[in-house]
Amino acid sequence: MAKKHILVVPGDGIGAEVTTVGKQVLEVIAQKFGHEFTYDEALIGHVAIEASGSPLPDETLTKMRAADAVLFGAVGHPKYDNDPSAKVRPEQGLLKMRKELGLYANLRPIKLFDELLGASSIKPEILRGADILFFRELTGDVYFGKRERIDEGNTAYDTMIYSKYEVERITRKAFEAARTRSKRLCSVDKANVLESSRLWREVVQALAPEYPDVTVEHQFIDAAAMLLIKDPKRFDVVVTGNLFGDILTDEASQIAGSMGMLASASVGDNTGVYEPIHGSAHDITGKGVANPMASVLSVALMLDISFGLKAEAEAVVNAIDGVLKAGYRTRDIADTTTPSELLLGTEAIGQKILEQLSN
Amino acid sequence: MAKKHILVVPGDGIGAEVTTVGKQVLEVIAQKFGHEFTYDEALIGHVAIEASGSPLPDETLTKMRAADAVLFGAVGHPKYDNDPSAKVRPEQGLLKMRKELGLYANLRPIKLFDELLGASSIKPEILRGADILFFRELTGDVYFGKRERIDEGNTAYDTMIYSKYEVERITRKAFEAARTRSKRLCSVDKANVLESSRLWREVVQALAPEYPDVTVEHQFIDAAAMLLIKDPKRFDVVVTGNLFGDILTDEASQIAGSMGMLASASVGDNTGVYEPIHGSAHDITGKGVANPMASVLSVALMLDISFGLKAEAEAVVNAIDGVLKAGYRTRDIADTTTPSELLLGTEAIGQKILEQLSN
Ligand SMILES: CC(C)[C@H](C(=O)O)[C@@H](O)C(=O)O
Ligand SMILES: CC(C)[C@H](C(=O)O)[C@@H](O)C(=O)O
Repeated sequence: MAKKHILVVPGDGIGAEVTTVGKQVLEVIAQKFGHEFTYDEALIGHVAIEASGSPLPDETLTKMRAADAVLFGAVGHPKYDNDPSAKVRPEQGLLKMRKELGLYANLRPIKLFDELLGASSIKPEILRGADILFFRELTGDVYFGKRERIDEGNTAYDTMIYSKYEVERITRKAFEAARTRSKRLCSVDKANVLESSRLWREVVQALAPEYPDVTVEHQFIDAAAMLLIKDPKRFDVVVTGNLFGDILTDEASQIAGSMGMLASASVGDNTGVYEPIHGSAHDITGKGVANPMASVLSVALMLDISFGLKAEAEAVVNAIDGVLKAGYRTRDIADTTTPSELLLGTEAIGQKILEQLSN
Repeated sequence: MAKKHILVVPGDGIGAEVTTVGKQVLEVIAQKFGHEFTYDEALIGHVAIEASGSPLPDETLTKMRAADAVLFGAVGHPKYDNDPSAKVRPEQGLLKMRKELGLYANLRPIKLFDELLGASSIKPEILRGADILFFRELTGDVYFGKRERIDEGNTAYDTMIYSKYEVERITRKAFEAARTRSKRLCSVDKANVLESSRLWREVVQALAPEYPDVTVEHQFIDAAAMLLIKDPKRFDVVVTGNLFGDILTDEASQIAGSMGMLASASVGDNTGVYEPIHGSAHDITGKGVANPMASVLSVALMLDISFGLKAEAEAVVNAIDGVLKAGYRTRDIADTTTPSELLLGTEAIGQKILEQLSN
């Protein structure tokens, strides 16, 4: 029996709707497998700014450090997006959390459930069998370098910066994962232009001899963005920097049919944080139509990576599979052939997932 | 009758093979429409380094300034890609050319020839009717900011930097193009994280009232990379920075079926440069299989944009269309249904294009 304390941090927009389902899944898992999970909740992002003025209140950070794992929703609000001069922004909470918790490795598995072959804009024959594991570096790069307005506000810069140890620790994780999979690692950079990318490539090249069983290839980010769509099966484990990882993994969501299906694990030295790749999606917030599966699959990653509960993680993935096999769909993964009685909202499809789990 | 002097700069890899066909097309156009085109040739990239030590010899730059337009091939060589410590690199020639000629606007039209609906990895029903015009800023951003190794070589940085006037001039071009098309402009940035992106967004927002007939939307680069594949038809004119433009347009090549179909125009204050989006492609160099259509379509852009020869440009596009309608394909745009006798190499499909043009 495992005893674990989980902090739920719904954040903004659809974050609350989807983590509600994620938490219910944890409850059923605890019951079914005889674990003791305790929960707490905390604020981040826009809702935290509204409540306290800070996008990441100290209280939230303290609770995160004390937890065995964090189930995270999303942050962001259109109000700030359309006001480039806003000084306090929801995303600052997210970035500060990543930095403070040392979450340098963001794992984003991209795998298509067979039932969703038709839901993607990409042809089924291109997709079938695609299975990619992204390692996105999460605490460096242009996300954390110095940024400033100069020249009386007429010029702005950000600093894209990497140190060798940062590249090394994420690359080692990627190499180790590649070992347990098809032994292919692709490192993505822009070494034909950027000095930080040349440093990146140097580090990957220097580590490669320690993993002689893994075949390494290097791709430029522009080529990678193209190849990912052209031939997703050529990729197995991909390691890349923070910005390129942000772009590639969102793009790769089309391989999984929808952003609503993609979970991620952010790990490092402390508490792991588990969250959907999708954002706060204010356009559908409160409508009860958000797909909770990315949050549920984030729970599966939590059970597996933070708690080492493999069978439990598998049960969660199988429950999703069962729901999809039974034909149930949320809007984002439905197609024109989906009968309306199988088209469910967040809560209803959540119930189906819980039923599958309880079986 | 137009009198024009064109500099051909084949560069590296398949650059020579494809610009050869591009130049032949110019010759046929001159003959057919009674123009007088004169030609010269110059080196850039790896071949220039080999010949003179410099990736952009002064002589090449002088010839470029003197020309009415430049027909460009590609630069790059695997030798440098795998040696992150190389001090002199082919790409430096390309970047210096862009800066020296003030080529701040890179136009990349993405349009699918009907005949190639099947050649893409994306479903035909998603693609049909997609027609996007990218404006990629080309002389700023992290491509030209300060970069350096510090901390005894253990840390490297690049500077992502934009000034308001740089954003304004490219955005105006994009707004003006949007006016002549479906009046929709999408600006892509990462304003939720980057200061240079917030400046970018401010400038676009400030210009919008001057173009009240154009609807402006802003997308973050990660969402844009996803939406481009999910629903390419939602985009008409897209304006973005140098790095994001590099990534998005390569990705968008899948909308056109293949990189081998995409042309670009780089324009600014002086001579315009016309080049395929594809790179030097050393893996197929010298095999005679490269698709020359991107180079030929670059010629069409040259005729249209630099020379104002609309009918001639149209004739070139129609010739490509004719060749595709007749069923001829290069390898990159063939599919399993292409009969082997219609599968042609660079030279042979070039001949078919010239025949179509002469008809
Ligand atoms: C909200 C935003 C700052 C964030 C990022 O860019 O990292 C998001 O896109 C993500 O991928 O988690
Ligand atoms: C070769 C490389 C430096 C170049 C770029 O990144 O601009 C290329 O990818 C392009 O798009 O023209």
